[in-house]
Amino acid sequence: MPHDYPQPLDAAEIPRFAGIPSFMRLPIFEDPAQLDIALVGVPWDGGTTNRAGARHGPREVRNQSSLMRKVHHVSRIAPYDLVRVGDLGDAPVNPIDLLDALKRIEGFYRRIHAAGAVPLSVGGDHLVTLPIFRALAAERPIGMVHFDAHSDTNDRYFGDNPYTHGTPFRRAIEEGLLDPRRTVQIGIRGSVYSADDEAFAEECGIRVIHMEEFAALGVEATLAEARRVVGDGPTYVSFDVDVLDPAFAPGTGTPEIGGMTTLQAQHMVRGLQGLNLVGADVVEVSPPFDLGGATALVGATMMFELLCILADALAQRR
Amino acid sequence: MPHDYPQPLDAAEIPRFAGIPSFMRLPIFEDPAQLDIALVGVPWDGGTTNRAGARHGPREVRNQSSLMRKVHHVSRIAPYDLVRVGDLGDAPVNPIDLLDALKRIEGFYRRIHAAGAVPLSVGGDHLVTLPIFRALAAERPIGMVHFDAHSDTNDRYFGDNPYTHGTPFRRAIEEGLLDPRRTVQIGIRGSVYSADDEAFAEECGIRVIHMEEFAALGVEATLAEARRVVGDGPTYVSFDVDVLDPAFAPGTGTPEIGGMTTLQAQHMVRGLQGLNLVGADVVEVSPPFDLGGATALVGATMMFELLCILADALAQRR
Amino acid sequence: MPHDYPQPLDAAEIPRFAGIPSFMRLPIFEDPAQLDIALVGVPWDGGTTNRAGARHGPREVRNQSSLMRKVHHVSRIAPYDLVRVGDLGDAPVNPIDLLDALKRIEGFYRRIHAAGAVPLSVGGDHLVTLPIFRALAAERPIGMVHFDAHSDTNDRYFGDNPYTHGTPFRRAIEEGLLDPRRTVQIGIRGSVYSADDEAFAEECGIRVIHMEEFAALGVEATLAEARRVVGDGPTYVSFDVDVLDPAFAPGTGTPEIGGMTTLQAQHMVRGLQGLNLVGADVVEVSPPFDLGGATALVGATMMFELLCILADALAQRR
Amino acid sequence: MPHDYPQPLDAAEIPRFAGIPSFMRLPIFEDPAQLDIALVGVPWDGGTTNRAGARHGPREVRNQSSLMRKVHHVSRIAPYDLVRVGDLGDAPVNPIDLLDALKRIEGFYRRIHAAGAVPLSVGGDHLVTLPIFRALAAERPIGMVHFDAHSDTNDRYFGDNPYTHGTPFRRAIEEGLLDPRRTVQIGIRGSVYSADDEAFAEECGIRVIHMEEFAALGVEATLAEARRVVGDGPTYVSFDVDVLDPAFAPGTGTPEIGGMTTLQAQHMVRGLQGLNLVGADVVEVSPPFDLGGATALVGATMMFELLCILADALAQRR
Amino acid sequence: MPHDYPQPLDAAEIPRFAGIPSFMRLPIFEDPAQLDIALVGVPWDGGTTNRAGARHGPREVRNQSSLMRKVHHVSRIAPYDLVRVGDLGDAPVNPIDLLDALKRIEGFYRRIHAAGAVPLSVGGDHLVTLPIFRALAAERPIGMVHFDAHSDTNDRYFGDNPYTHGTPFRRAIEEGLLDPRRTVQIGIRGSVYSADDEAFAEECGIRVIHMEEFAALGVEATLAEARRVVGDGPTYVSFDVDVLDPAFAPGTGTPEIGGMTTLQAQHMVRGLQGLNLVGADVVEVSPPFDLGGATALVGATMMFELLCILADALAQRR
Amino acid sequence: MPHDYPQPLDAAEIPRFAGIPSFMRLPIFEDPAQLDIALVGVPWDGGTTNRAGARHGPREVRNQSSLMRKVHHVSRIAPYDLVRVGDLGDAPVNPIDLLDALKRIEGFYRRIHAAGAVPLSVGGDHLVTLPIFRALAAERPIGMVHFDAHSDTNDRYFGDNPYTHGTPFRRAIEEGLLDPRRTVQIGIRGSVYSADDEAFAEECGIRVIHMEEFAALGVEATLAEARRVVGDGPTYVSFDVDVLDPAFAPGTGTPEIGGMTTLQAQHMVRGLQGLNLVGADVVEVSPPFDLGGATALVGATMMFELLCILADALAQRR
Repeated sequence: MPHDYPQPLDAAEIPRFAGIPSFMRLPIFEDPAQLDIALVGVPWDGGTTNRAGARHGPREVRNQSSLMRKVHHVSRIAPYDLVRVGDLGDAPVNPIDLLDALKRIEGFYRRIHAAGAVPLSVGGDHLVTLPIFRALAAERPIGMVHFDAHSDTNDRYFGDNPYTHGTPFRRAIEEGLLDPRRTVQIGIRGSVYSADDEAFAEECGIRVIHMEEFAALGVEATLAEARRVVGDGPTYVSFDVDVLDPAFAPGTGTPEIGGMTTLQAQHMVRGLQGLNLVGADVVEVSPPFDLGGATALVGATMMFELLCILADALAQRR
Repeated sequence: MPHDYPQPLDAAEIPRFAGIPSFMRLPIFEDPAQLDIALVGVPWDGGTTNRAGARHGPREVRNQSSLMRKVHHVSRIAPYDLVRVGDLGDAPVNPIDLLDALKRIEGFYRRIHAAGAVPLSVGGDHLVTLPIFRALAAERPIGMVHFDAHSDTNDRYFGDNPYTHGTPFRRAIEEGLLDPRRTVQIGIRGSVYSADDEAFAEECGIRVIHMEEFAALGVEATLAEARRVVGDGPTYVSFDVDVLDPAFAPGTGTPEIGGMTTLQAQHMVRGLQGLNLVGADVVEVSPPFDLGGATALVGATMMFELLCILADALAQRR
Repeated sequence: MPHDYPQPLDAAEIPRFAGIPSFMRLPIFEDPAQLDIALVGVPWDGGTTNRAGARHGPREVRNQSSLMRKVHHVSRIAPYDLVRVGDLGDAPVNPIDLLDALKRIEGFYRRIHAAGAVPLSVGGDHLVTLPIFRALAAERPIGMVHFDAHSDTNDRYFGDNPYTHGTPFRRAIEEGLLDPRRTVQIGIRGSVYSADDEAFAEECGIRVIHMEEFAALGVEATLAEARRVVGDGPTYVSFDVDVLDPAFAPGTGTPEIGGMTTLQAQHMVRGLQGLNLVGADVVEVSPPFDLGGATALVGATMMFELLCILADALAQRR
Repeated sequence: MPHDYPQPLDAAEIPRFAGIPSFMRLPIFEDPAQLDIALVGVPWDGGTTNRAGARHGPREVRNQSSLMRKVHHVSRIAPYDLVRVGDLGDAPVNPIDLLDALKRIEGFYRRIHAAGAVPLSVGGDHLVTLPIFRALAAERPIGMVHFDAHSDTNDRYFGDNPYTHGTPFRRAIEEGLLDPRRTVQIGIRGSVYSADDEAFAEECGIRVIHMEEFAALGVEATLAEARRVVGDGPTYVSFDVDVLDPAFAPGTGTPEIGGMTTLQAQHMVRGLQGLNLVGADVVEVSPPFDLGGATALVGATMMFELLCILADALAQRR
Repeated sequence: MPHDYPQPLDAAEIPRFAGIPSFMRLPIFEDPAQLDIALVGVPWDGGTTNRAGARHGPREVRNQSSLMRKVHHVSRIAPYDLVRVGDLGDAPVNPIDLLDALKRIEGFYRRIHAAGAVPLSVGGDHLVTLPIFRALAAERPIGMVHFDAHSDTNDRYFGDNPYTHGTPFRRAIEEGLLDPRRTVQIGIRGSVYSADDEAFAEECGIRVIHMEEFAALGVEATLAEARRVVGDGPTYVSFDVDVLDPAFAPGTGTPEIGGMTTLQAQHMVRGLQGLNLVGADVVEVSPPFDLGGATALVGATMMFELLCILADALAQRR
Repeated sequence: MPHDYPQPLDAAEIPRFAGIPSFMRLPIFEDPAQLDIALVGVPWDGGTTNRAGARHGPREVRNQSSLMRKVHHVSRIAPYDLVRVGDLGDAPVNPIDLLDALKRIEGFYRRIHAAGAVPLSVGGDHLVTLPIFRALAAERPIGMVHFDAHSDTNDRYFGDNPYTHGTPFRRAIEEGLLDPRRTVQIGIRGSVYSADDEAFAEECGIRVIHMEEFAALGVEATLAEARRVVGDGPTYVSFDVDVLDPAFAPGTGTPEIGGMTTLQAQHMVRGLQGLNLVGADVVEVSPPFDLGGATALVGATMMFELLCILADALAQRR
């Protein structure tokens, strides 16, 4: 019965600034089996080659998520009436050992996946998506709608290091977790290291929609193309806040000017309703660079947008 | 004779950072009868249910208003040549007694109204518009063009409290001060408490143009619709800075991403030239959350935009 | 058995930036009967006559309290081994109705007191201490060691309002909750409204140690005097962060320069070990005015200092 | 041979936060003859009539320019392969003597010009463009594409002072350095001092495209008009960051809301590829008003955009 | 009759955040003859060789001065009962012409001096004290108690420029305005340009008490020495906020660590009561570098401290 | 001849905000053999278990070091006249591989040591001192004067990780690089993980002077004890800015309230003149947590203090 599902605190009784700041002011759970959608933090930025700080992302997104209410004003989706949603706390991490951290994170998500819950995660840097994929896509490769200023398909850094926040999707493709032909990247922009930086993405069949193409196509045509690429197979949505212009999301490690507005990003996520969604994340919110919490608020709101389409997808699949 | 009207300090003689920061660097008045348009601060946020701070709004808007010049660059309206404009100081308030504050504010505006001056106010939270209406609309209900992310037509909070910054327009309609059928709300958005949050607004006939509809219609069509709704009856313009995207106006108590740009907002206000205007306000500038004064600058500029159309309206009515 | 007592998360396994930010990273409780010392937030600043914001204090003190460890480095007190300590969440409040808020807070503390737990609270503005006293001191008046820049024994504001953050201790004395002859105020300073501002405090027998006297006496002599005043009766410690110089605690509503250092404040609190303590609080941390969280860190550390002497007092009383 | 040209540090070996922060992490040069394009800072804001701070611009733009990579992602221009680019340090200035500063700056640029290098400069306030013109345009007047919120063609301030950051282009025209009929100003907006503020610009034939006309025309039509105006004569591009909306570039001395987005600005600069370019600058980045470095990042990125079209122009001219 | 003297707004009726921010919330005057002590702003930093911003000092000190009350809590001086005090506005300045600015400021102070009022000024950089001296000390040289991290007796900068904020007191001595043998400098510290930087000060007989000597002597012995030096001749007090440690006063152009605490500074100023005072100033508050207004609050409080001893001196002289 | 030694830029010709921000505005060198004292940055914080950011320390300390002048005002040491000092750039690092980073850093310092230069370093987190010791102390163990809030002699974190910024000195002792009996730690404070946290330090003979003992002893007695402990053997000075109270140095990863003032710290370092110094560092400046650059200024000034005693030591050894 829907009325037994976990509910956020009522802001007309407990003000938004009061109470323990869990995600969306939902109850905190330890057992993923009690949930259909598990909200999870991954406080780790060990893959960051430039400005660290995304390790503090989950805490500040939880903080700002107190401003979210219960029903989507456009789609009218009421996620807490459709499915069981709760805060499952943070994945275990290791700030000084990259490989150990990847293992700990993967293990946590394997437990969620095994329990039948769908994770909606907040990073952390973008490398956290790799261990999530290792847990969720072990059985078969998944597709992805990827919002980002960067393709994150680089190969090596600092000698021969294969794992950084610039490499997760090359690794995921190499490991058979991500199907490049069912992958669309939207908002890519900014100067590049060399003329063939995007060669890998192109060769393996990723559909890259640069910011400039997005600006020319507009939201609707981009959405149509994204939906065409991923089709009806299992699909993950990864939202790197640096897809947004730094005016909208200054608190991130690798900002690139000339990005998306939040309104465009919201329309894009809303337009993914109906896909066969198996998880989602919001990454690269970096509070030390986020004066006033603006980016954490964006992260929390995009998390709510993703929650609505995930909840709808789960309700439809029942 | 126009050249006797109060004039701002001359920036080519007294730099903008110098001098007492009155609104627009205009002279300060005590008697509203000396003015056609009274610029008034209402430093009060006692109706705020979440993040307080708008009580500091008038001071910081005054501060940033030093950057305003004298003539509108598009409409060519020169308000200080058309009518007598001055800074009438702040309305009296009470930071610890809500009902007493409402009374004090109403009394101050009754004095302005009785003197024949038109008020252009800076809040304060949005509840300050209610006592202003009680003073200005005592004789007959007025219409309103309302820019906001929120409808502010909720009913009760924290038990049975009828007065918060989320309720002023329900109260104003109940009290016969505001004509809902001559009211248009523009920019409404953000998650809602329940699916029927907007039932009251709809039932009483308010024309709600959500942000998404605004984005689809564009500025011109929205303006046409707004002008149609309010017609040529007496009309008030209430500008809550949270109608703007937080990238443009971060310093506010209840930010909602996905909002308007300042350029859109300016075009909207300019498009209201020619209405039968009886007052206007800019509310919810909250300096403690406004790093660097960006939102106060927006508030000051929107105040100048409103001043131009008010001055023009008064000059036309003569 | 001590090892069954609630323990903070282990920072060598779960980094300080990870996990739900409860006070001291302790488990969260709903029933005060499970605790000897209840850590409580009171997110309310409805008594603030100037700059609001202390309503956000509990959340940010919780946030910064993640930096606290488990054992006091000077006294060697290990509070979590001595008594059961946990986060009891926030007291219920009402941001728009002062009298209702006072009632809700009092009710929450009555429940704690009835359960036999001792509260260690984080405000909120200083008016929150009044309803706490109404719950804790109903049976007999208590004494107080009061750290503050202000005496908080004013009478009326804004007409005839008796309740503001400048009046709690006059009210508490009038209501027979606080014994003025067992009350010592330390650190009082700053310009005053009139020459007889401190007449009430003097007349009723409060021992006021102005900042200048504290500077002359030094920590040890001040401590001796404070201990002499309160004696061995039941005593409360109220720590307003504005007793500190704004260099050490900028994020507060009524800063006064020329205050205490944190090292002096720590020495003072440590010197209260052995008193017959019945409760304590840290108030007036105002995050919107606290750039970088410095004051919240001070608040969290002073809370740990207070926790250690409270835990020791409880262990001694057993 | 291209591979002998100066190259930025390699971010896959030396992280972006490491190393001396020269422009674009390029080698530092003392002799302009070793360069085709000289990157120069002009740390001077002595012409600023309102909020100073642009003197710190070069340092912070250097700082943020570490985030730039080597190849333009749209035009595929690889400037460091086409021409010799290096950091030539800062022009000599004098913070307390305006006329002496103008002379020192002019002398520095005369040396660059004589060596055959093309300068790409970072101010400083907009008055720095005047001594640059005196060095570059001594032989014949040049044309200009001017991005700005202000026309900067005022006449006198504070009595009879002819040199401020509001007057450089009137002076440049009077001195025969700038051809007004080959000058286009884009993005002009904001309230004006008097109705005839733009009389000079209009009379001498400058093509002024106000922000409102830009919004109506769109990027492509504006570009066509700009290219028509400047034709194929020698042309300078001056980019005042206040052409951008303060949401995108808050750190500037005279912000005006309702401005351009960074994406629009980037498209505009890219569209100037192929012009007969003789120099460019980015001015009015004011770090003391730039919380978090957002505006310096914008400045660095626009500098890279300008560098690409300059490098292309030089390569084409060979 | 004292009760006719100008009084600050009453904070128990008009909250501190309300009303026009004049100095101390006093009435604003145009005629110095109506005042015994004229509070004056000098919004000018044209002598600043490093980080500008003190031009914004008067406005922000006015802003923070709203927190001041009416009676000194230690000396019990009630300045508004003793003499007529008011806000005389800002001296005229010129941000782009140093010599013209010096003349305008001097003229303004000549008018004050001629009217028989004593000025208490807020800078502005320290060069503003020179034109004040030219007005106040034209008849005979005066003595000075000078709080500062720097001696400000340098000679020339940037070629042969004699006027910067590092040179005012060498100029004042050369012009016969300041008697070096009746001058004491307290708090001097920080690395120096060369080993003979202080040769001038020593040779002309200034008593320099470096920070290290102050720390060794303590407040009382330093005060005795300062009073001995200035004796009972006419004396000016100049308080550069950089005498304070940057922890207490971060918002200044040339911070030097290892400075005074505010409590020490307050004790020092209080200890000057009884001198034959002819004026005072607080300089080098630089709001763009003053996050959160901490330094402006220090400036406002030191201004109140100075006001109390000035008012007392005037009352004694009657 | 001294006048051939590298000299900082002259601030009377090139303002402090101008020019490339090298350490102390000195020339940049690539070959350590050209230097007696090499100023080096180590932009790495891979050992940080809590709040990262010290990787940005060298850049911001370089930035603020522009405020340093040439001669010490107390000791009269003129380091640039005594020895050859220059900026040797940054040590190579690896932000995503801890062990590789330790190796790269060690290699860089081996080159400096082999060339006969003495390093004065800026971190980075405190783990960077370990590879520096591996290079400098390979021949024989050295002594250390260690300023810090934390002993940094922990053993393991996150399972079995031996290398973090909490462990360098236990590792250094185990590796025979640091002589514990010639090691003194000053300023240690803050809550601890367990009662035996300091057992290792005590057992191996480190002299730990807690903050409380320092406060009781005072600067002179502490200095005497420190000098007694290290004697006349080769000695390193390691200055962790968190030894300072967060009011003085907020921008650091693990702040502990109740710390030292900068004036005390300066006196302490000055008191080490005459020791047999072989190197020094300033670590844990974390710019993302350092609003306004206050901590970087402290870091730069402490670096200058250390430079003076190092230069003097080298000159004495000649």
